[in-house]
Amino acid sequence: MTEGRRPARVCVDAVGGDYAPREVLDGVTRALAADLAVEIVLTGPEEFIVPFAKKQDRVTAYPTTEVIQMDDHPASAVRSKSDSSIVVGCRLVREGEADAFFSAGSTGACMAAATLMMGRIAGVARPAIATIIPTMTTPVVLLDVGANADCKPEHLVAFAHMGIAYAQIVLDVSEPTVGLLNIGEEPTKGSALAIEAYALMHAGVPGFCGNIEGRDVFAGAADVIVTDGFTGNVALKLLEGTSRALLSQVKEAMTSSMVRRMAAAVLAPSLKRLKNRLDPDTYGGAPLLGVKGVCIIGHGSSNHTAVAAGIRVAAQAVRGGLTDRIASAVDRDVS
Amino acid sequence: MTEGRRPARVCVDAVGGDYAPREVLDGVTRALAADLAVEIVLTGPEEFIVPFAKKQDRVTAYPTTEVIQMDDHPASAVRSKSDSSIVVGCRLVREGEADAFFSAGSTGACMAAATLMMGRIAGVARPAIATIIPTMTTPVVLLDVGANADCKPEHLVAFAHMGIAYAQIVLDVSEPTVGLLNIGEEPTKGSALAIEAYALMHAGVPGFCGNIEGRDVFAGAADVIVTDGFTGNVALKLLEGTSRALLSQVKEAMTSSMVRRMAAAVLAPSLKRLKNRLDPDTYGGAPLLGVKGVCIIGHGSSNHTAVAAGIRVAAQAVRGGLTDRIASAVDRDVS
Repeated sequence: MTEGRRPARVCVDAVGGDYAPREVLDGVTRALAADLAVEIVLTGPEEFIVPFAKKQDRVTAYPTTEVIQMDDHPASAVRSKSDSSIVVGCRLVREGEADAFFSAGSTGACMAAATLMMGRIAGVARPAIATIIPTMTTPVVLLDVGANADCKPEHLVAFAHMGIAYAQIVLDVSEPTVGLLNIGEEPTKGSALAIEAYALMHAGVPGFCGNIEGRDVFAGAADVIVTDGFTGNVALKLLEGTSRALLSQVKEAMTSSMVRRMAAAVLAPSLKRLKNRLDPDTYGGAPLLGVKGVCIIGHGSSNHTAVAAGIRVAAQAVRGGLTDRIASAVDRDVS
Repeated sequence: MTEGRRPARVCVDAVGGDYAPREVLDGVTRALAADLAVEIVLTGPEEFIVPFAKKQDRVTAYPTTEVIQMDDHPASAVRSKSDSSIVVGCRLVREGEADAFFSAGSTGACMAAATLMMGRIAGVARPAIATIIPTMTTPVVLLDVGANADCKPEHLVAFAHMGIAYAQIVLDVSEPTVGLLNIGEEPTKGSALAIEAYALMHAGVPGFCGNIEGRDVFAGAADVIVTDGFTGNVALKLLEGTSRALLSQVKEAMTSSMVRRMAAAVLAPSLKRLKNRLDPDTYGGAPLLGVKGVCIIGHGSSNHTAVAAGIRVAAQAVRGGLTDRIASAVDRDVS
């Protein structure tokens, strides 16, 4: 904690995610222990959060009466369930009762509620979801990974500015390099969207280093990689699926005979380290960038480690002034 | 070889690829030994191919005087170098002097030459490049992987029909299942392109099994996976890059101490098998589907194994009647 600053107040959706509320509350406990300058506001049903808040310092309960389910239609649920943990959590940020919101619940509902309640930063037409992907070298910020399936070139430019701000804070890189995910290295390669976006980014994005092909993503070819939400979502899920499948195959190859099982036991710690390094949970959820407030969305399958990591990232984004940084970067670009 | 049929005649570009002509000619030798019912027509400079053809049965040399380089602009090179190994090879297929063309040279030039020389199958607006990706279960045909960066929904439907024909022949699946690469399971998810393509494929593609997300590609969720050439190219290169990087990390984890090195030696054969199974070279090049003739494009880095696999796949496509199958599938769909 920077001396003299007030604590980062993170609102946490107690009923978001497949293992809520238990893993969420365990994650809160862990986050509080790890960071003495964080305060938690919990939204969710009274019976879960009030007894928990009573036992814990630095936790305030804000009981809500409705719950948005994973299979609810996001936009309609946000409109109809105004006293849900997600809608109220985002409203508390707008009203200044909290600095950030974290949920491992419905991604669509979080996006809709944050956009509606917090509003968009001036100059941001489309908020985007970013994620940090582990690579063979340093981690990379990839965006958009699913908020906008159809994009225009100028949206990609705004994504670049937002990605830079996020990388500066969360990866601690002062001047991040930015690449455009594309299917060739030359500026004239790719879809109409990619070709136009290249020209705009070349002209106006600091640190722009050109096109990045699929095979170079995992090599960590840039600090920030920009793409439309369709390609980004396919890419993210491919990376997750492939890493998981490959590591499980390696494990299987290792346990298929007694001698090999013994050899594998010796190797297990190295592989475990590799697996941990590639584990998306280490990086704690995906921010919705471009709204007026910090909003971090966790995997539905978040366990307490992932929840604690999400809270840590939320606090880091608050302390780094994420929203202001994005506002001024986008503002500079427009002017 | 089916009894009574004439041999499959595959024209091979002797100067295509980073290791040409040596690895190409070695690949030809290997393919001839593996398949007694294949005949080879070689295009390329006289000094490379004529002496080789003299020493080998079932090889005809067709000397050409020009070479299209990897960095030539594909369409202009095809127009200006009419006596190049690629252009002449495609012409020989059109003229019936060969049944198929294989090159590990410039993908763009092969596409342009095959489209120009062989022509498109009636009803196919956009030829597409397919590739076979190894997965954790059975291999999958993915297309388009780069011929068309911008696509319309009806193009994706034609890709589905072409992918089915290719899977039937090369994967030997009589009724392949077909999935649409998308960012959610529901029909209403995804980009405008994906939503429209879903509706058309649902109505008219046999074996259509709905949307497939990135994380399920490597699990082998369908026999054929259809997408636009931008997403497909990013996906293919991500898969290649990730597999390579992960396996090298596993290897590194294994060799970092003496004890572990010994353990690794025991495991090496299992991992080698895994690596081979994931090796794209096993599946021998990518077909350009939708042209009137078989055209298989190899990796630029093809060694003799990859060249031999490419020739094998070309012969298989000829014997399976690939072009006719596509023509009748597309024709049925249009009517």
